[in-house]
Amino acid sequence: MQGLKAILFDTFGTVVDWRGSLIAELSAFGAARGLDVDWTAFVDAWRDAYKPSMDRVRTGEVPWTILDTLHRESLEMLVTKFGIAGLTDDDLAHLTKGWHRLHGWPDSVAGLTRLKSKFIISPLSNGNVALLVNMAKFAGIPWDMVFGSEIPRAYKPDPQVYLGACSMLGCMPGEVMMAAAHNYDLAAARALGMRTGFIARPTEYGPRQSKDLRAESDWDVIATSIEHMADQLGC
Amino acid sequence: MQGLKAILFDTFGTVVDWRGSLIAELSAFGAARGLDVDWTAFVDAWRDAYKPSMDRVRTGEVPWTILDTLHRESLEMLVTKFGIAGLTDDDLAHLTKGWHRLHGWPDSVAGLTRLKSKFIISPLSNGNVALLVNMAKFAGIPWDMVFGSEIPRAYKPDPQVYLGACSMLGCMPGEVMMAAAHNYDLAAARALGMRTGFIARPTEYGPRQSKDLRAESDWDVIATSIEHMADQLGC
Repeated sequence: MQGLKAILFDTFGTVVDWRGSLIAELSAFGAARGLDVDWTAFVDAWRDAYKPSMDRVRTGEVPWTILDTLHRESLEMLVTKFGIAGLTDDDLAHLTKGWHRLHGWPDSVAGLTRLKSKFIISPLSNGNVALLVNMAKFAGIPWDMVFGSEIPRAYKPDPQVYLGACSMLGCMPGEVMMAAAHNYDLAAARALGMRTGFIARPTEYGPRQSKDLRAESDWDVIATSIEHMADQLGC
Repeated sequence: MQGLKAILFDTFGTVVDWRGSLIAELSAFGAARGLDVDWTAFVDAWRDAYKPSMDRVRTGEVPWTILDTLHRESLEMLVTKFGIAGLTDDDLAHLTKGWHRLHGWPDSVAGLTRLKSKFIISPLSNGNVALLVNMAKFAGIPWDMVFGSEIPRAYKPDPQVYLGACSMLGCMPGEVMMAAAHNYDLAAARALGMRTGFIARPTEYGPRQSKDLRAESDWDVIATSIEHMADQLGC
């Protein structure tokens, strides 16, 4: 990995366990309020709304909107769909901010701390800056920089997201690695000349996950965890 | 300081000793090359070129340009003015990156580490992202986020620099403190509703410094160091 200066991480799924974290948080919230809801189904539906909501921004159907706002809009739709009554505006704001309180996978903080000793590390995420900064404080993630989506005002896999971050780091794309649990993200990065690192997260979407179970190309690094990536990069 | 969530720091002079760091680095470089130059005068002249070069960007006289490029242009002008011969392009690139290798004041890392336990901390600097990220790696500064000048594509004291950072943090201006050794920076922040913290750096410009020797208004916090600021904020 000669000349590698920085590693940019996809965040949701790659670094943090959004599904397990949100199911735990919403289940506790529901129990405290006496709500009878299938929170696992609720969280899966919330995440299912993620890509379509971003696509409406990406295609220009709606103006630039940060992920916190998209999450809130999806939440309001799902609260109605699941027949949940009695939530206040403060409740909805609190639940939306559940995405700021996600836990890392067991290897994430240790692996990132090792990689940080040798490389610049940053998220390159569709999350907005506040979401990512608050998440890092909550989960103890030691980023050097936080590339949130408002900086390019665009969502992955738009090329400007990847190239803009490389440029701001003063790096050529070949000096930067994209690290992700999602093959589409690495394909987009490789097409722009970046290096690629796959981190397998076969239970990100739960026990019945059907995609991204393994590396689908000869990515430069293929790892089972961020610690395994650190092993391979000599950190 | 109820409701305070984040502290944004001016960097050059407030967090790092640019003058002492650059005089030491350039003196060592000059000695190794057998160059007979008054490096203290050289560094002071380099910094003197800083504000005029940014003002040409701020007024629209030249298009958006990052500080690394402005530093390089000023360096080339000064190399000629000081009659320094024999420098290669690599030498000029190395010297320009001297601004990425600045040391913190003795209290900076300890004070910021304490403040980070309670608040989001980030530079809000005219430096570009790569400069600030590399400087943090070099000096061991534990930022949560790095607001470099390419993010707003503007230089302080333009209001969008301050307001854009507050917005990206999901904060109202009153929830964010600007911390600086320079009264003008705090005046700009206060006018926008931000809180203000003065950190005295009476030798930033050397022993004959004539401005910013003390707080010139009733800033919310007035401190003699970043550790002193941490004391006052209960960290």
